[in-house]
Amino acid sequence: MDIQNMAGITFCGRRNGNERMRIMKSLTEYVTFNTKNEFELVNITGKCQEFLEKSGIREGFILVSAMHITAGVFINDHEPGLHQDIRDWLQELAPKGPDYRHHRTGEVNGDAHLKSLLVGHQVILPVTGGRLDFGPWQQVFYAEFDGRRAKRLLLKAIGE
Amino acid sequence: MDIQNMAGITFCGRRNGNERMRIMKSLTEYVTFNTKNEFELVNITGKCQEFLEKSGIREGFILVSAMHITAGVFINDHEPGLHQDIRDWLQELAPKGPDYRHHRTGEVNGDAHLKSLLVGHQVILPVTGGRLDFGPWQQVFYAEFDGRRAKRLLLKAIGE
Amino acid sequence: MDIQNMAGITFCGRRNGNERMRIMKSLTEYVTFNTKNEFELVNITGKCQEFLEKSGIREGFILVSAMHITAGVFINDHEPGLHQDIRDWLQELAPKGPDYRHHRTGEVNGDAHLKSLLVGHQVILPVTGGRLDFGPWQQVFYAEFDGRRAKRLLLKAIGE
Repeated sequence: MDIQNMAGITFCGRRNGNERMRIMKSLTEYVTFNTKNEFELVNITGKCQEFLEKSGIREGFILVSAMHITAGVFINDHEPGLHQDIRDWLQELAPKGPDYRHHRTGEVNGDAHLKSLLVGHQVILPVTGGRLDFGPWQQVFYAEFDGRRAKRLLLKAIGE
Repeated sequence: MDIQNMAGITFCGRRNGNERMRIMKSLTEYVTFNTKNEFELVNITGKCQEFLEKSGIREGFILVSAMHITAGVFINDHEPGLHQDIRDWLQELAPKGPDYRHHRTGEVNGDAHLKSLLVGHQVILPVTGGRLDFGPWQQVFYAEFDGRRAKRLLLKAIGE
Repeated sequence: MDIQNMAGITFCGRRNGNERMRIMKSLTEYVTFNTKNEFELVNITGKCQEFLEKSGIREGFILVSAMHITAGVFINDHEPGLHQDIRDWLQELAPKGPDYRHHRTGEVNGDAHLKSLLVGHQVILPVTGGRLDFGPWQQVFYAEFDGRRAKRLLLKAIGE
Protein backbone atom coordinates (compact mmCIF):
# COMPACT_ATOMS: atom_id res chain seq x y z
CA MET A 1 0.00 0.00 0.00
CA ASP A 2 1.36 3.37 -0.96
CA ILE A 3 1.20 6.53 1.10
CA GLN A 4 -0.32 8.28 -1.94
CA ASN A 5 -3.44 6.21 -1.49
CA MET A 6 -4.06 7.93 1.77
CA ALA A 7 -4.85 11.25 0.07
CA GLY A 8 -8.23 12.59 1.09
CA ILE A 9 -8.35 10.86 4.43
CA THR A 10 -8.74 13.29 7.26
CA PHE A 11 -9.52 10.82 9.97
CA CYS A 12 -8.76 7.21 10.65
CA GLY A 13 -9.69 5.05 13.59
CA ARG A 14 -12.33 2.91 15.19
CA ARG A 15 -15.34 4.85 14.01
CA ASN A 16 -17.80 2.98 16.23
CA GLY A 17 -15.71 2.92 19.38
CA ASN A 18 -14.36 5.45 21.87
CA GLU A 19 -10.78 5.19 20.74
CA ARG A 20 -10.67 7.11 17.51
CA MET A 21 -7.43 8.61 16.40
CA ARG A 22 -7.36 12.27 17.20
CA ILE A 23 -6.06 15.00 14.94
CA MET A 24 -3.76 17.35 16.77
CA LYS A 25 -4.46 20.98 15.98
CA SER A 26 -2.62 24.15 16.80
CA LEU A 27 -3.20 27.84 16.22
CA THR A 28 -1.11 30.89 17.13
CA GLU A 29 -2.14 34.52 17.18
CA TYR A 30 -0.59 37.77 18.40
CA VAL A 31 -2.47 40.63 20.03
CA THR A 32 -0.94 44.11 20.21
CA PHE A 33 -1.76 46.50 23.04
CA ASN A 34 -1.24 50.25 23.01
CA THR A 35 -2.29 51.27 26.50
CA LYS A 36 -2.91 54.92 27.34
CA ASN A 37 -1.52 54.53 30.83
CA GLU A 38 1.65 53.08 32.25
CA PHE A 39 -0.34 50.71 34.45
CA GLU A 40 -3.40 49.10 32.93
CA LEU A 41 -5.39 45.90 33.37
CA VAL A 42 -7.19 44.79 30.20
CA ASN A 43 -9.86 42.09 30.29
CA ILE A 44 -9.00 39.78 27.38
CA THR A 45 -11.50 37.00 28.10
CA GLY A 46 -13.60 37.85 25.02
CA LYS A 47 -10.48 37.90 22.85
CA CYS A 48 -9.47 34.46 24.19
CA GLN A 49 -13.00 33.18 23.52
CA GLU A 50 -12.87 34.38 19.88
CA PHE A 51 -9.46 32.82 19.45
CA LEU A 52 -10.74 29.50 20.81
CA GLU A 53 -13.60 29.51 18.29
CA LYS A 54 -11.15 30.22 15.45
CA SER A 55 -8.90 27.36 16.57
CA GLY A 56 -11.68 24.76 16.36
CA ILE A 57 -10.16 22.97 19.34
CA ARG A 58 -12.51 20.87 21.49
CA GLU A 59 -10.03 19.51 24.07
CA GLY A 60 -6.73 21.15 24.87
CA PHE A 61 -4.82 24.07 26.30
CA ILE A 62 -4.52 27.72 25.28
CA LEU A 63 -1.32 29.44 26.38
CA VAL A 64 -1.78 33.18 26.99
CA SER A 65 1.69 34.65 27.34
CA ALA A 66 3.03 38.20 27.38
CA MET A 67 5.92 38.66 24.94
CA HIS A 68 7.39 41.50 26.98
CA ILE A 69 9.21 41.38 30.30
CA THR A 70 7.37 44.32 31.86
CA ALA A 71 3.86 42.91 31.51
CA GLY A 72 1.84 40.16 33.16
CA VAL A 73 -1.09 37.85 32.53
CA PHE A 74 -3.36 36.58 35.27
CA ILE A 75 -6.81 35.17 35.96
CA ASN A 76 -8.95 36.90 38.56
CA ASP A 77 -12.12 38.91 39.10
CA HIS A 78 -13.50 41.65 36.82
CA GLU A 79 -14.16 44.11 39.64
CA PRO A 80 -12.83 47.71 39.39
CA GLY A 81 -12.26 48.10 43.14
CA LEU A 82 -10.15 44.96 43.20
CA HIS A 83 -8.15 46.23 40.22
CA GLN A 84 -7.24 49.36 42.18
CA ASP A 85 -6.29 47.13 45.11
CA ILE A 86 -4.03 45.12 42.81
CA ARG A 87 -2.38 48.30 41.50
CA ASP A 88 -1.72 49.64 45.02
CA TRP A 89 -0.51 46.26 46.26
CA LEU A 90 1.93 45.84 43.38
CA GLN A 91 3.13 49.40 43.93
CA GLU A 92 3.82 48.55 47.58
CA LEU A 93 5.62 45.24 46.93
CA ALA A 94 7.54 46.42 43.84
CA PRO A 95 7.59 50.22 44.04
CA LYS A 96 8.32 52.50 41.12
CA GLY A 97 11.40 54.51 41.92
CA PRO A 98 14.83 55.72 40.93
CA ASP A 99 16.92 53.25 42.89
CA TYR A 100 17.08 50.15 40.73
CA ARG A 101 20.45 49.06 39.37
CA HIS A 102 18.66 48.32 36.12
CA HIS A 103 18.29 52.08 35.64
CA ARG A 104 22.04 52.40 34.99
CA THR A 105 21.18 51.15 31.50
CA GLY A 106 19.03 54.25 30.97
CA GLU A 107 15.76 52.41 31.64
CA VAL A 108 13.36 53.66 34.30
CA ASN A 109 11.12 50.60 34.55
CA GLY A 110 12.87 48.34 37.09
CA ASP A 111 9.63 48.06 39.06
CA ALA A 112 7.74 46.77 35.98
CA HIS A 113 10.18 43.84 35.66
CA LEU A 114 9.60 42.89 39.31
CA LYS A 115 5.81 43.26 38.96
CA SER A 116 5.97 40.87 35.99
CA LEU A 117 7.89 38.33 38.11
CA LEU A 118 5.41 38.68 40.97
CA VAL A 119 2.21 38.23 38.98
CA GLY A 120 3.63 35.95 36.29
CA HIS A 121 3.60 36.53 32.53
CA GLN A 122 1.45 33.62 31.39
CA VAL A 123 -1.51 31.36 32.14
CA ILE A 124 -2.92 28.20 30.58
CA LEU A 125 -6.62 28.18 29.74
CA PRO A 126 -8.19 24.70 29.79
CA VAL A 127 -10.54 23.93 26.87
CA THR A 128 -13.18 21.23 27.42
CA GLY A 129 -15.96 20.37 24.99
CA GLY A 130 -15.03 23.39 22.87
CA ARG A 131 -15.42 25.88 25.76
CA LEU A 132 -13.10 27.77 28.12
CA ASP A 133 -13.35 25.57 31.21
CA PHE A 134 -13.57 28.37 33.78
CA GLY A 135 -15.09 28.76 37.21
CA PRO A 136 -17.91 31.30 37.68
CA TRP A 137 -15.77 34.44 38.18
CA GLN A 138 -12.61 33.62 36.30
CA GLN A 139 -11.60 36.26 33.75
CA VAL A 140 -8.27 36.64 31.93
CA PHE A 141 -6.33 39.89 32.23
CA TYR A 142 -3.38 41.39 30.41
CA ALA A 143 -1.48 43.51 32.93
CA GLU A 144 0.58 46.36 31.53
CA PHE A 145 3.20 47.69 33.94
CA ASP A 146 5.20 49.96 31.59
CA GLY A 147 2.85 50.96 28.81
CA ARG A 148 2.28 53.75 26.34
CA ARG A 149 4.01 51.83 23.55
CA ALA A 150 3.10 48.77 21.44
CA LYS A 151 3.32 45.52 23.41
CA ARG A 152 2.48 42.02 22.17
CA LEU A 153 0.74 39.03 23.65
CA LEU A 154 0.81 35.49 22.26
CA LEU A 155 -2.21 33.16 22.15
CA LYS A 156 -1.36 29.56 21.29
CA ALA A 157 -3.82 26.66 21.24
CA ILE A 158 -2.80 23.01 21.20
CA GLY A 159 -5.35 20.23 21.23
CA GLU A 160 -7.78 18.27 19.16
CA MET B 1 -9.41 3.39 -0.59
CA ASP B 2 -12.44 4.45 1.37
CA ILE B 3 -12.44 5.86 4.87
CA GLN B 4 -14.90 3.15 5.84
CA ASN B 5 -12.18 0.59 5.39
CA MET B 6 -10.32 2.17 8.24
CA ALA B 7 -12.92 1.08 10.79
CA GLY B 8 -11.37 -0.97 13.54
CA ILE B 9 -7.91 0.53 13.29
CA THR B 10 -6.77 2.07 16.51
CA PHE B 11 -3.19 2.60 15.57
CA CYS B 12 -1.33 3.16 12.35
CA GLY B 13 2.34 3.77 11.77
CA ARG B 14 5.73 2.22 11.39
CA ARG B 15 5.32 -0.66 13.76
CA ASN B 16 8.97 -1.62 13.73
CA GLY B 17 10.41 1.87 13.89
CA ASN B 18 10.55 4.67 16.41
CA GLU B 19 8.13 6.90 14.61
CA ARG B 20 4.74 5.42 15.25
CA MET B 21 1.69 7.63 15.05
CA ARG B 22 0.57 8.58 18.50
CA ILE B 23 -3.01 8.76 19.68
CA MET B 24 -3.73 11.98 21.50
CA LYS B 25 -5.69 11.48 24.70
CA SER B 26 -7.33 13.88 27.07
CA LEU B 27 -9.19 13.59 30.35
CA THR B 28 -10.83 16.22 32.57
CA GLU B 29 -11.97 15.91 36.16
CA TYR B 30 -13.21 18.29 38.84
CA VAL B 31 -12.41 18.05 42.54
CA THR B 32 -14.55 19.87 45.11
CA PHE B 33 -13.07 21.12 48.39
CA ASN B 34 -15.04 22.04 51.51
CA THR B 35 -12.34 23.25 53.84
CA LYS B 36 -13.07 23.69 57.55
CA ASN B 37 -10.82 26.74 57.80
CA GLU B 38 -10.49 29.93 55.84
CA PHE B 39 -6.83 29.20 55.15
CA GLU B 40 -5.90 25.63 54.36
CA LEU B 41 -3.21 23.80 52.39
CA VAL B 42 -4.35 20.41 51.06
CA ASN B 43 -1.86 17.91 49.67
CA ILE B 44 -3.43 16.67 46.40
CA THR B 45 -0.49 14.65 45.08
CA GLY B 46 -2.31 11.33 45.63
CA LYS B 47 -5.40 12.69 43.87
CA CYS B 48 -3.26 13.79 40.90
CA GLN B 49 -1.62 10.35 40.82
CA GLU B 50 -5.01 8.58 40.71
CA PHE B 51 -6.17 10.93 37.97
CA LEU B 52 -3.05 10.20 35.94
CA GLU B 53 -3.71 6.45 36.19
CA LYS B 54 -7.31 6.96 35.06
CA SER B 55 -6.16 9.04 32.08
CA GLY B 56 -3.88 6.30 30.73
CA ILE B 57 -1.45 8.97 29.55
CA ARG B 58 2.21 7.97 29.18
CA GLU B 59 3.70 11.24 27.93
CA GLY B 60 2.08 14.60 28.43
CA PHE B 61 0.99 17.37 30.75
CA ILE B 62 -1.57 17.53 33.55
CA LEU B 63 -2.95 21.00 34.25
CA VAL B 64 -3.96 21.47 37.89
CA SER B 65 -5.91 24.71 38.06
CA ALA B 66 -8.10 26.33 40.73
CA MET B 67 -11.49 27.38 39.33
CA HIS B 68 -11.87 30.13 41.95
CA ILE B 69 -10.07 33.44 42.23
CA THR B 70 -9.37 33.22 45.95
CA ALA B 71 -7.43 29.94 45.85
CA GLY B 72 -4.00 28.84 44.66
CA VAL B 73 -2.12 25.78 43.48
CA PHE B 74 1.58 25.25 44.04
CA ILE B 75 4.29 22.62 44.25
CA ASN B 76 6.47 22.54 47.35
CA ASP B 77 7.38 20.51 50.42
CA HIS B 78 5.01 18.49 52.62
CA GLU B 79 6.37 19.85 55.89
CA PRO B 80 3.94 21.28 58.51
CA GLY B 81 6.39 23.89 59.82
CA LEU B 82 6.93 25.24 56.32
CA HIS B 83 3.16 25.39 55.80
CA GLN B 84 2.83 27.64 58.85
CA ASP B 85 5.69 29.76 57.46
CA ILE B 86 3.82 30.05 54.16
CA ARG B 87 0.60 31.11 55.95
CA ASP B 88 2.42 33.79 57.99
CA TRP B 89 4.37 35.01 54.98
CA LEU B 90 1.24 35.35 52.82
CA GLN B 91 -0.49 37.12 55.70
CA GLU B 92 2.39 39.60 55.84
CA LEU B 93 2.60 40.28 52.09
CA ALA B 94 -1.16 40.29 51.48
CA PRO B 95 -2.77 40.97 54.87
CA LYS B 96 -6.37 40.24 55.71
CA GLY B 97 -8.06 43.51 56.62
CA PRO B 98 -10.91 45.92 56.16
CA ASP B 99 -9.21 48.39 53.84
CA TYR B 100 -9.52 46.90 50.38
CA ARG B 101 -11.61 48.75 47.80
CA HIS B 102 -12.96 45.36 46.76
CA HIS B 103 -14.86 45.31 50.06
CA ARG B 104 -17.20 48.06 48.80
CA THR B 105 -18.94 45.26 46.92
CA GLY B 106 -19.78 43.62 50.25
CA GLU B 107 -16.98 41.08 50.00
CA VAL B 108 -14.40 40.74 52.79
CA ASN B 109 -11.82 38.63 50.97
CA GLY B 110 -9.63 41.16 49.15
CA ASP B 111 -6.53 39.57 50.68
CA ALA B 112 -7.49 36.15 49.27
CA HIS B 113 -7.48 37.56 45.71
CA LEU B 114 -3.99 38.98 46.23
CA LYS B 115 -2.73 35.73 47.78
CA SER B 116 -4.00 33.89 44.70
CA LEU B 117 -2.06 36.30 42.44
CA LEU B 118 1.09 35.90 44.53
CA VAL B 119 1.20 32.11 44.65
CA GLY B 120 -0.48 31.48 41.29
CA HIS B 121 -3.63 29.42 40.65
CA GLN B 122 -2.21 26.63 38.50
CA VAL B 123 0.70 24.32 37.80
CA ILE B 124 1.58 21.87 35.04
CA LEU B 125 2.60 18.36 36.09
CA PRO B 126 4.92 16.63 33.61
CA VAL B 127 4.08 12.99 32.86
CA THR B 128 6.92 10.74 31.60
CA GLY B 129 6.67 7.00 31.08
CA GLY B 130 3.24 7.00 32.75
CA ARG B 131 4.52 8.63 35.98
CA LEU B 132 4.44 12.10 37.53
CA ASP B 133 7.92 13.31 36.66
CA PHE B 134 8.74 14.95 40.00
CA GLY B 135 11.88 15.65 41.96
CA PRO B 136 12.34 13.93 45.35
CA TRP B 137 10.35 16.40 47.51
CA GLN B 138 7.85 17.85 45.06
CA GLN B 139 4.25 17.60 46.23
CA VAL B 140 1.18 19.38 44.80
CA PHE B 141 -0.95 21.57 47.07
CA TYR B 142 -4.35 23.18 46.76
CA ALA B 143 -4.23 26.43 48.74
CA GLU B 144 -7.52 27.73 50.07
CA PHE B 145 -7.43 31.40 51.05
CA ASP B 146 -11.16 32.03 51.61
CA GLY B 147 -12.72 28.71 52.46
CA ARG B 148 -15.61 27.24 54.37
CA ARG B 149 -17.69 26.86 51.19
CA ALA B 150 -17.51 24.52 48.18
CA LYS B 151 -14.62 25.35 45.83
CA ARG B 152 -13.62 23.50 42.67
CA LEU B 153 -10.32 22.48 41.09
CA LEU B 154 -9.82 21.28 37.53
CA LEU B 155 -7.49 18.44 36.52
CA LYS B 156 -6.90 18.14 32.79
CA ALA B 157 -4.52 15.72 31.10
CA ILE B 158 -3.33 16.03 27.50
CA GLY B 159 -0.90 13.57 25.99
CA GLU B 160 -0.53 10.16 24.51
CA MET C 1 -7.76 -4.39 5.78
CA ASP C 2 -5.28 -5.54 8.38
CA ILE C 3 -3.29 -3.29 10.66
CA GLN C 4 -0.15 -5.07 9.47
CA ASN C 5 -0.60 -3.46 6.09
CA MET C 6 0.00 -0.10 7.68
CA ALA C 7 3.63 -0.92 8.43
CA GLY C 8 5.95 1.67 6.97
CA ILE C 9 3.46 4.52 6.95
CA THR C 10 4.68 7.44 8.97
CA PHE C 11 2.07 9.93 7.90
CA CYS C 12 -1.48 9.75 6.71
CA GLY C 13 -3.87 12.52 5.76
CA ARG C 14 -5.00 14.89 3.08
CA ARG C 15 -1.66 15.54 1.48
CA ASN C 16 -2.91 18.38 -0.68
CA GLY C 17 -5.07 20.10 1.92
CA ASN C 18 -4.52 21.92 5.19
CA GLU C 19 -5.88 19.19 7.36
CA ARG C 20 -3.22 16.55 7.46
CA MET C 21 -3.04 14.22 10.40
CA ARG C 22 -0.35 15.33 12.78
CA ILE C 23 2.08 13.07 14.58
CA MET C 24 2.33 13.93 18.24
CA LYS C 25 5.90 14.04 19.50
CA SER C 26 7.36 14.35 22.93
CA LEU C 27 10.86 14.61 24.36
CA THR C 28 12.09 14.88 27.95
CA GLU C 29 15.51 15.89 29.21
CA TYR C 30 17.03 16.69 32.59
CA VAL C 31 19.64 19.36 33.24
CA THR C 32 21.75 19.29 36.41
CA PHE C 33 23.06 22.48 37.99
CA ASN C 34 25.92 22.73 40.46
CA THR C 35 25.97 26.41 41.30
CA LYS C 36 28.94 27.93 43.11
CA ASN C 37 26.75 30.31 45.06
CA GLU C 38 23.64 29.93 47.15
CA PHE C 39 21.80 32.46 44.98
CA GLU C 40 22.39 32.28 41.25
CA LEU C 41 20.51 33.15 38.07
CA VAL C 42 21.54 31.03 35.08
CA ASN C 43 20.48 31.96 31.55
CA ILE C 44 19.24 28.69 30.01
CA THR C 45 17.82 30.08 26.78
CA GLY C 46 20.56 28.44 24.68
CA LYS C 47 19.98 25.12 26.43
CA CYS C 48 16.24 25.38 25.69
CA GLN C 49 17.00 26.21 22.06
CA GLU C 50 19.25 23.12 21.69
CA PHE C 51 16.58 20.97 23.31
CA LEU C 52 13.95 22.31 20.92
CA GLU C 53 16.15 21.39 17.94
CA LYS C 54 16.64 17.87 19.32
CA SER C 55 12.89 17.44 19.81
CA GLY C 56 12.09 18.18 16.17
CA ILE C 57 8.87 19.88 17.26
CA ARG C 58 7.43 22.55 14.97
CA GLU C 59 4.29 23.50 16.92
CA GLY C 60 3.86 22.92 20.63
CA PHE C 61 4.89 23.70 24.17
CA ILE C 62 8.11 23.17 26.10
CA LEU C 63 7.69 22.92 29.86
CA VAL C 64 10.74 24.17 31.78
CA SER C 65 10.27 23.10 35.38
CA ALA C 66 12.56 23.01 38.41
CA MET C 67 12.52 19.60 40.12
CA HIS C 68 13.45 21.11 43.48
CA ILE C 69 11.36 23.20 45.84
CA THR C 70 14.03 25.80 46.56
CA ALA C 71 14.58 26.90 42.96
CA GLY C 72 12.63 28.89 40.38
CA VAL C 73 12.28 29.37 36.65
CA PHE C 74 11.27 32.64 35.03
CA ILE C 75 11.41 34.62 31.82
CA ASN C 76 12.87 38.12 31.94
CA ASP C 77 15.73 40.30 30.78
CA HIS C 78 19.42 39.30 30.54
CA GLU C 79 20.71 42.43 32.28
CA PRO C 80 23.16 42.09 35.22
CA GLY C 81 21.90 45.19 37.05
CA LEU C 82 18.35 43.86 36.94
CA HIS C 83 19.56 40.51 38.26
CA GLN C 84 21.02 42.24 41.32
CA ASP C 85 17.72 44.08 41.72
CA ILE C 86 15.87 40.75 41.63
CA ARG C 87 18.22 39.27 44.26
CA ASP C 88 17.76 42.26 46.61
CA TRP C 89 14.00 42.33 46.05
CA LEU C 90 13.60 38.62 46.80
CA GLN C 91 15.79 39.05 49.87
CA GLU C 92 13.47 41.84 51.06
CA LEU C 93 10.19 39.99 50.42
CA ALA C 94 11.41 36.57 51.59
CA PRO C 95 14.44 37.24 53.82
CA LYS C 96 17.03 34.66 54.71
CA GLY C 97 16.99 34.22 58.47
CA PRO C 98 16.82 31.94 61.48
CA ASP C 99 13.16 32.39 62.31
CA TYR C 100 11.31 30.00 60.04
CA ARG C 101 9.39 27.11 61.61
CA HIS C 102 10.75 24.98 58.79
CA HIS C 103 14.17 25.23 60.46
CA ARG C 104 13.00 23.00 63.31
CA THR C 105 13.59 20.15 60.87
CA GLY C 106 17.29 21.06 60.78
CA GLU C 107 17.00 22.89 57.46
CA VAL C 108 18.15 26.50 57.11
CA ASN C 109 16.54 27.32 53.77
CA GLY C 110 13.00 28.45 54.65
CA ASP C 111 13.52 31.63 52.62
CA ALA C 112 14.41 29.60 49.51
CA HIS C 113 11.02 27.82 49.65
CA LEU C 114 9.21 31.16 49.80
CA LYS C 115 11.32 32.62 46.98
CA SER C 116 10.34 29.61 44.84
CA LEU C 117 6.64 30.26 45.56
CA LEU C 118 7.04 33.96 44.74
CA VAL C 119 8.81 33.60 41.40
CA GLY C 120 7.27 30.28 40.40
CA HIS C 121 9.09 27.07 39.51
CA GLN C 122 8.08 26.64 35.88
CA VAL C 123 7.29 28.33 32.58
CA ILE C 124 5.88 27.18 29.26
CA LEU C 125 7.83 28.12 26.13
CA PRO C 126 5.66 28.39 23.02
CA VAL C 127 7.12 26.80 19.86
CA THR C 128 5.90 28.13 16.50
CA GLY C 129 7.32 27.13 13.12
CA GLY C 130 10.13 25.25 14.87
CA ARG C 131 11.29 28.30 16.85
CA LEU C 132 10.96 29.58 20.41
CA ASP C 133 8.17 32.12 19.97
CA PHE C 134 9.64 34.85 22.15
CA GLY C 135 9.43 38.63 22.26
CA PRO C 136 12.60 40.66 21.64
CA TRP C 137 14.02 40.56 25.20
CA GLN C 138 12.62 37.35 26.60
CA GLN C 139 15.23 35.02 28.04
CA VAL C 140 14.72 31.94 30.25
CA PHE C 141 16.41 31.75 33.66
CA TYR C 142 16.97 29.02 36.19
CA ALA C 143 16.96 30.65 39.62
CA GLU C 144 18.86 28.87 42.35
CA PHE C 145 17.93 29.99 45.88
CA ASP C 146 19.73 27.32 47.92
CA GLY C 147 22.60 26.08 45.82
CA ARG C 148 26.03 24.54 46.16
CA ARG C 149 24.68 21.03 45.56
CA ALA C 150 23.32 19.18 42.50
CA LYS C 151 19.85 20.36 41.48
CA ARG C 152 17.81 19.17 38.51
CA LEU C 153 15.59 20.88 35.93
CA LEU C 154 13.16 19.13 33.59
CA LEU C 155 12.64 20.09 29.95
CA LYS C 156 9.64 18.46 28.31
CA ALA C 157 8.37 19.15 24.80
CA ILE C 158 4.94 18.15 23.53
CA GLY C 159 3.80 18.98 20.02
CA GLU C 160 4.04 18.00 16.43
